[in-house]
Amino acid sequence: MIIVLKEHPDQKQLDNLVSWLESMDLSIQFSKGEHTTIMGLIGDTTVVDTDLLNALDIVEGVRRIQEPYKKANRKFHPDDTVVHIAEDIDIGGGHFQIIAGPCSVESEEQVTAIAEAIKATGTKLYRGGAFKPRTSPYSFQGLRTTGIRMLEKAKEATGLPIVTEIMDISHLDLFENVDVIQVGARNMQNFELLKELGHQPKPVLLKRGLSSTLKEWLMSAEYVMAGGNDKIILCERGIRTFETATRNTLDLSAVPMLKKKTHLPVIVDPSHATGIAALVEPMALAATACGADGLMIEVHNNPEKALCDGAQSLRPEQFARLVEEVNALRPFAYGQQAGV
Amino acid sequence: MIIVLKEHPDQKQLDNLVSWLESMDLSIQFSKGEHTTIMGLIGDTTVVDTDLLNALDIVEGVRRIQEPYKKANRKFHPDDTVVHIAEDIDIGGGHFQIIAGPCSVESEEQVTAIAEAIKATGTKLYRGGAFKPRTSPYSFQGLRTTGIRMLEKAKEATGLPIVTEIMDISHLDLFENVDVIQVGARNMQNFELLKELGHQPKPVLLKRGLSSTLKEWLMSAEYVMAGGNDKIILCERGIRTFETATRNTLDLSAVPMLKKKTHLPVIVDPSHATGIAALVEPMALAATACGADGLMIEVHNNPEKALCDGAQSLRPEQFARLVEEVNALRPFAYGQQAGV
Amino acid sequence: MIIVLKEHPDQKQLDNLVSWLESMDLSIQFSKGEHTTIMGLIGDTTVVDTDLLNALDIVEGVRRIQEPYKKANRKFHPDDTVVHIAEDIDIGGGHFQIIAGPCSVESEEQVTAIAEAIKATGTKLYRGGAFKPRTSPYSFQGLRTTGIRMLEKAKEATGLPIVTEIMDISHLDLFENVDVIQVGARNMQNFELLKELGHQPKPVLLKRGLSSTLKEWLMSAEYVMAGGNDKIILCERGIRTFETATRNTLDLSAVPMLKKKTHLPVIVDPSHATGIAALVEPMALAATACGADGLMIEVHNNPEKALCDGAQSLRPEQFARLVEEVNALRPFAYGQQAGV
Amino acid sequence: MIIVLKEHPDQKQLDNLVSWLESMDLSIQFSKGEHTTIMGLIGDTTVVDTDLLNALDIVEGVRRIQEPYKKANRKFHPDDTVVHIAEDIDIGGGHFQIIAGPCSVESEEQVTAIAEAIKATGTKLYRGGAFKPRTSPYSFQGLRTTGIRMLEKAKEATGLPIVTEIMDISHLDLFENVDVIQVGARNMQNFELLKELGHQPKPVLLKRGLSSTLKEWLMSAEYVMAGGNDKIILCERGIRTFETATRNTLDLSAVPMLKKKTHLPVIVDPSHATGIAALVEPMALAATACGADGLMIEVHNNPEKALCDGAQSLRPEQFARLVEEVNALRPFAYGQQAGV
Repeated sequence: MIIVLKEHPDQKQLDNLVSWLESMDLSIQFSKGEHTTIMGLIGDTTVVDTDLLNALDIVEGVRRIQEPYKKANRKFHPDDTVVHIAEDIDIGGGHFQIIAGPCSVESEEQVTAIAEAIKATGTKLYRGGAFKPRTSPYSFQGLRTTGIRMLEKAKEATGLPIVTEIMDISHLDLFENVDVIQVGARNMQNFELLKELGHQPKPVLLKRGLSSTLKEWLMSAEYVMAGGNDKIILCERGIRTFETATRNTLDLSAVPMLKKKTHLPVIVDPSHATGIAALVEPMALAATACGADGLMIEVHNNPEKALCDGAQSLRPEQFARLVEEVNALRPFAYGQQAGV
Repeated sequence: MIIVLKEHPDQKQLDNLVSWLESMDLSIQFSKGEHTTIMGLIGDTTVVDTDLLNALDIVEGVRRIQEPYKKANRKFHPDDTVVHIAEDIDIGGGHFQIIAGPCSVESEEQVTAIAEAIKATGTKLYRGGAFKPRTSPYSFQGLRTTGIRMLEKAKEATGLPIVTEIMDISHLDLFENVDVIQVGARNMQNFELLKELGHQPKPVLLKRGLSSTLKEWLMSAEYVMAGGNDKIILCERGIRTFETATRNTLDLSAVPMLKKKTHLPVIVDPSHATGIAALVEPMALAATACGADGLMIEVHNNPEKALCDGAQSLRPEQFARLVEEVNALRPFAYGQQAGV
Repeated sequence: MIIVLKEHPDQKQLDNLVSWLESMDLSIQFSKGEHTTIMGLIGDTTVVDTDLLNALDIVEGVRRIQEPYKKANRKFHPDDTVVHIAEDIDIGGGHFQIIAGPCSVESEEQVTAIAEAIKATGTKLYRGGAFKPRTSPYSFQGLRTTGIRMLEKAKEATGLPIVTEIMDISHLDLFENVDVIQVGARNMQNFELLKELGHQPKPVLLKRGLSSTLKEWLMSAEYVMAGGNDKIILCERGIRTFETATRNTLDLSAVPMLKKKTHLPVIVDPSHATGIAALVEPMALAATACGADGLMIEVHNNPEKALCDGAQSLRPEQFARLVEEVNALRPFAYGQQAGV
Repeated sequence: MIIVLKEHPDQKQLDNLVSWLESMDLSIQFSKGEHTTIMGLIGDTTVVDTDLLNALDIVEGVRRIQEPYKKANRKFHPDDTVVHIAEDIDIGGGHFQIIAGPCSVESEEQVTAIAEAIKATGTKLYRGGAFKPRTSPYSFQGLRTTGIRMLEKAKEATGLPIVTEIMDISHLDLFENVDVIQVGARNMQNFELLKELGHQPKPVLLKRGLSSTLKEWLMSAEYVMAGGNDKIILCERGIRTFETATRNTLDLSAVPMLKKKTHLPVIVDPSHATGIAALVEPMALAATACGADGLMIEVHNNPEKALCDGAQSLRPEQFARLVEEVNALRPFAYGQQAGV
């Protein structure tokens, strides 16, 4: 971290600053120029509050050199993390997976029927929503515990591991037979939940918050990893911008950018990002092309009667075509072509 | 709600749509034009998913006429809500309150010293952070239970009711002696927490989410109110935009806009919004001028050593001046001048 | 257009509204419900100011049914527009083109050398900046007239048609030998310039504004088309959001969304969007995968000495690889796979 | 400017960098730490492209210490600029002015009637739109030359100096009798226009772009000032965010923030910012409270028949009340109270 001092800083304030920094076990290297003095901080600067430094009368500016995340940082862990979910099912490090299923679990018949349709395409991971975060208290809130039971039955019937969202720490016991615990966009900075998930062994699928920077997202991953669980799958699902033609703005540049910053696998959810079924296939192809490690796709056998988010769900036959097209494109994706 | 149909809609799909809408107890009024047919839905349309309707092949567009919130809606509750906090301490309906204190509770001495300084200005509500949501797992996370105990002591010493933030449902028991429970920006859509707070009697100070629309914010208030608790204070604290000169962009137009939409009191937190101590006073005056029902201000007796957010904290003497200036301006604020 | 009236509207105001609407040659169809009256406007509603209607005391809400653009609207022009640039060089309707070259024209040697390198890859269109819109008045402003001359020489030497940006109407005469006139993001709503470009015959490459919605962008295309020139190529180049990891946020969902809304060709500029050379290739592949009609790529033979935007320029050998990879992926892009 | 190098930088690339920087007349001060080397650049770094530096293989990060604007910078010009418009009419440095009038000039009667109503309130500056930047080519584009003539007549009749918007350099001759030339939000980065306005003597009212940072805005002011004209009035008019309840989000924190960064006067336009007449008065009071040097307010004698933006116009009697309330509040605004 670098601190640039204003010209002629008050010596007493400077001494205070130095002693405060040293109390955090940082060593300081001064570099005096004609008009400006620069302080270089050496040591673990993740603990330093840059806003606070910026507020000091004697400080002109501050710049962090090191990223504030460590365990998620590719610099300290150059190899891709491969998250192992079940026998023969890995994500990351060249392993590509599609996760598909209905936004909401609605009935045993529905859940099992869609699971079978999805399995038929060669897809290996099943998702379905039991706890549903809805903007309105008057909207369907999910079947909750009953929904989890239905997902377990679909898993028994098809053998597909299941992915489902958690909304509160107190529900964790219900997730015993769940294979991947999803943290939704609205809970990306529910730090108490993240800490708890760091102390259990299941993989965590961490969706990006609606207005989260890549840095904040990686810091949330760091919360889980700091607890000891490094099985994290990042999922880009669109960010909030001024554009209203699509529900959110899918930020695909985040995929190659994250690949530079972190070793964790990155997947993309074009269904929630766009909110429009007709855009799911083109954006799934684009996500695959720029190097995503997988996709999360909403599939429903009767989108017009779906209890939530039917607008963006594919019918099973549309999903089957998407899987085929994605598979055909994959050898030509970024990093996959020969000689790259 | 109005549904505009495409020209020549498929009759079978239209019948499906009609029967689905009727199954939700809505009655439908058709209006056929030359090229377009319009369906007007009568009844409680808060349950209808507009995204889903928009996705149907036969639908050209959908428009909600009624706001999706009811209990928070000024239309159905024209009088200002006055939230009663303690004897002689109300917010809303002409009652203006300043809430002040340190971002983080750090020690018993600090907490009590600041509380006394704040009380000396005539300020009646004390805030301090015990549970701290921090972007980094390596930053100070607050004194937690110990911090709550220190706040209780400051309350005993000064008589000032206390406001502090909750981060998880499981901590609710610790808030027994807290007077106002704060829900932070990152938890504005923690729906499980909101539901729980609807089933307890303490006032809730609900901060706006970093990228929440006014509608979403009011829907979150509606979650609490739907449970039976209508003692809600809304707190604008800045939104996330492209501008980086200030930490967030304080959206003061939200104050008069909310006053039209809802009967709930609205206060403003210029400290977190700007992140810069020098901007707190001008923005506190502006918030007061446009009709806010109160302010939330960070005050610290030693900002340079604050464990978090010192950058935006006022010193007690700066805060005292702010209180004086706000009080002097109040008679000239929107809605306060004679004849308005 | 639909106008929803408030309950019990003032009859005199309603009469005023009706006569005003009729003065714009609109016919009105009333539909009275229990609590609400809906007015359907029939005729050319592109002239109606919805903000004004929304402001009337008797109006509850307004919804536009028809898009406000006509000539750019796919609804009235279902077939893809193919923009013809030169013999054997078309864009749109299945014709895919890469446009490449340096951000800034710097010297005759540079311009011709890069043009030859680009031609060697099979690329058919050359771009280079002569007039440069720079945030700072102290940054290099482009070689201007001299730069245009250098581009003309490169065209003579290689036969590649040239694309370059116009910054003011008064420069139009200088563009006589230019093949495609580019309108930059900052001028997307320079309406006087757009009008003028509608009255000349050269194709216009219209970049999206930094914070323009798809609707505004299409309205800007409509300005040019209203003048009689329908040879417009839309170019997505990233929008401004809160995310700072990339210079802008590339909005690739805009590609398939625009394809639904308009018949005009859509290309993508991953260089300006990301501002980072290492992201250009993955995002070029993604843009191709989701159905873009072409790409615009910055290439420089010595990026480290480029007078502007070297940060995002590819070296000729990197560009050659990108072209190869894009070509290999194209048969698997959206809409290209057999049976789609 | 500070450049942080990566560990073990390639010596040849470092030599290249050094010689390139020296070729720009910068001297370099090295500071070698354990793992990191820092280069401090001394000299006029406004010419250095930080994006380019960031792109170099050997560079870890770059930080600009000096602001890239000079003439607009308060650091080099500590006293407030007072823009003199006419006898007894100044803005800035304690001089507060309200500028009012119709969005669009529509007829001689209208223009003069509104001017008289405005003059009656004690307001000293009249604005009216002759050239209108409209999103749609089918919307009213202003009376243009005829409109300018009507404004001149209103000026003759009332003596009020006039403020009106320019849309293209080629119209400059028409502005001979205009007192303040307005540059609209969409032209804030029309650099050719800004340069030209720097070479003429009239004051320029520079509106903030829809998605412009404070830094970009000041750089646009710098374009005008670099030409020799330092009579610039900045006008905050709302920025584009995700929030749609108001037309734009009025960024009032920009007022005190700009006051720290620049010596130029800053006024606020609550009419365009909110787009809603009912919000104009509260936001005008808020703008005054946080220290703005003036206001720009839309006034129309018949808002419901205004040819543009009637939705946000005040009637003359509403405006008269606003003026009274603003005047009453002014002594209590930021920086105005005794002892500040």
